[in-house]
Amino acid sequence: MREVAVIGVGMNKWGELWEKSHRRIWTEAALAAVDDAGVDRVDAMYVGCMSGGLFVGQEHLGALLADELGMGPIPGTRVESACASGGLAFRQAVLAVAAGAHDIVLASGVEKMTDVDGGAATYALSTAADQEYECYQGITFPGLYAMMARVHMERYGTTRRQLADVAVKNHAHGLLNELAQFRMKVTAEQVMGSAAVADPLRLLDCSPITDGAAAVVLCPLEMARKLSKQPPVRVAASAHATDRIALHERDDMADLASTRHAAALAYKQAGITPKDLSFCEVHDCFTIAEILVIEALGLTARGKGGAAAGSGLTAQGGKIPVNPSGGLKSKGHPVGATGIAQIREAVLQLRGEAGKRQVPKARWGLTQNMGGTGASTVVHIFERAEGRKR
Amino acid sequence: MREVAVIGVGMNKWGELWEKSHRRIWTEAALAAVDDAGVDRVDAMYVGCMSGGLFVGQEHLGALLADELGMGPIPGTRVESACASGGLAFRQAVLAVAAGAHDIVLASGVEKMTDVDGGAATYALSTAADQEYECYQGITFPGLYAMMARVHMERYGTTRRQLADVAVKNHAHGLLNELAQFRMKVTAEQVMGSAAVADPLRLLDCSPITDGAAAVVLCPLEMARKLSKQPPVRVAASAHATDRIALHERDDMADLASTRHAAALAYKQAGITPKDLSFCEVHDCFTIAEILVIEALGLTARGKGGAAAGSGLTAQGGKIPVNPSGGLKSKGHPVGATGIAQIREAVLQLRGEAGKRQVPKARWGLTQNMGGTGASTVVHIFERAEGRKR
Repeated sequence: MREVAVIGVGMNKWGELWEKSHRRIWTEAALAAVDDAGVDRVDAMYVGCMSGGLFVGQEHLGALLADELGMGPIPGTRVESACASGGLAFRQAVLAVAAGAHDIVLASGVEKMTDVDGGAATYALSTAADQEYECYQGITFPGLYAMMARVHMERYGTTRRQLADVAVKNHAHGLLNELAQFRMKVTAEQVMGSAAVADPLRLLDCSPITDGAAAVVLCPLEMARKLSKQPPVRVAASAHATDRIALHERDDMADLASTRHAAALAYKQAGITPKDLSFCEVHDCFTIAEILVIEALGLTARGKGGAAAGSGLTAQGGKIPVNPSGGLKSKGHPVGATGIAQIREAVLQLRGEAGKRQVPKARWGLTQNMGGTGASTVVHIFERAEGRKR
Repeated sequence: MREVAVIGVGMNKWGELWEKSHRRIWTEAALAAVDDAGVDRVDAMYVGCMSGGLFVGQEHLGALLADELGMGPIPGTRVESACASGGLAFRQAVLAVAAGAHDIVLASGVEKMTDVDGGAATYALSTAADQEYECYQGITFPGLYAMMARVHMERYGTTRRQLADVAVKNHAHGLLNELAQFRMKVTAEQVMGSAAVADPLRLLDCSPITDGAAAVVLCPLEMARKLSKQPPVRVAASAHATDRIALHERDDMADLASTRHAAALAYKQAGITPKDLSFCEVHDCFTIAEILVIEALGLTARGKGGAAAGSGLTAQGGKIPVNPSGGLKSKGHPVGATGIAQIREAVLQLRGEAGKRQVPKARWGLTQNMGGTGASTVVHIFERAEGRKR
């Protein structure tokens, strides 16, 4: 396998982009990544999108977007794994470069979610759960994550306030991200006083419905050192794992086994432990999700994740900053794009180009992107490549 | 890159499978492939599915089906490229094995299309075209292929009877395929006298709406020689190309540029020419499609494809049998599964296990799977692996 690097990143301003079409949203991010990489071609492209069919009535996005980019006849492949579609598209791009099938590859993600009404968006998102055994009973994602939160609270003493602390931290981080959808400070009182969605989760515990895209450019590490105007970032690990899709089928509703499994594989590939990480970008689709994820990544002991945000452990300036970008909570969550935007943040941090939200001396960064209630997880670890000019 | 082989194939009886769920249809084919390969594990799986969202309200199929197979936490990845989803899922599996990321990989495809009414199925399929520039004008796939047929007829003198000859040939082939949806002989008169769909195309020019699945197992060629109870079949080439998605944007509406491009890449990888092929499985979603495809594959000169079926060139016993399985026309066309079923047929033929429909002395086989009106094409070439016992 060839070693792989990321040499370009792009993203647009996320939000309710009513005046922009699905393809235009994607193209803005893709062109930004190609421009950032300083390349004049890509040899193949991957796009993560959860439900082009249900959100915008458009499948076949690999071909459509390769055409839109003016890069046909290059291969364009769409990958789907619910909210982990972006991370998984990146993983397929890594494999294609590693295998030697293609040299310069664009990995991207997009979702336009606000062109349907709220009920239709909730239905589209519910197709990430087990339709026959979960959704037919009437449950949707806030309800599923609410049950995971309840188990965690009952078993480990995690408090309502600790859930709120995750939102407070991530919105504080997102204030420094000019592309985030919700750049606003929130207090724990505001979170706990916001509208109830599914007890114990309230509106400000939930990531938003978002239109947006992100893209990155990959190539072999050796080529990156010669070709790129940007300092290359090495892909040190790429891991993907699954779990029972239906929550009730799992041994433990308060443990993300797919994240635990993918993280173990990734640490082994990279040859590091959680202690070596400079920062993480993780899938905080709900506040409880970040707590479960940091436990599964080994950033805290099991059951101890609740205290991490409030204690400052996972805040900027803390021992292991989590979601310096603002996370899904503040940045927004266009489901297919989220995994790629996490990688963009990791690359900017490792290049030392994250501006006001820069994590000092960042060397190792981890991204964790998951689908459903954790039925699939993709974990990547990135390292600042040695020998580059700074 | 490691060399890759196919060591197991599986498929179920295709048709209107009202009594079987989407996941059960898939699992039958997947288990059959695993059993045929004689393995007790798979390390990763890929599934091609065009629109789980619109056909059955279920996305996140990589995780769901890995779970259903009882193989979690292995990586499960869903790939979509409209009607080329199956072929493209296979290509990603080839890359994963070639890269060394996984050893034993299941590549599969599934679609359950008959649980929605006809209008909803037509809408779901139309999301493979350019929604904004084609579908909003009211056109659907029979109309798009009808225009391609009209151009071919006007320019090259292709006749209505020649279109019918493709259906006659493929239904004759399909009579010998016990898993085909429509095992019936049809005459040219029956085709030309069937209900008009989009002039000049009639009902019997069109592939059907189908429920079905297919699966194959891949591993490194070296491992296949040691491990497999089945004679291995080598993946000699894997190529993927795109074209303008909207028909009106193309330089030539009667030429499948993506197929031409992917085929050229594939012949180069395999080190063969069209003359070396023993048979082809191609994407005859409409009768005109097979004519366009065999021209783009170089089996006939451009404009000369119309005469191929009637002259016997592409029939069983002819110089280059096309669609010995019966093709999409007779076998059925569960869109995500079609590309994998083509590969199953190629493997059976190259093993010499195709029974009554066996192509004598088959050594090289080609599969061509396309999405939309040819906006994407995946071409694979397979070779009977040397040194195996027969």
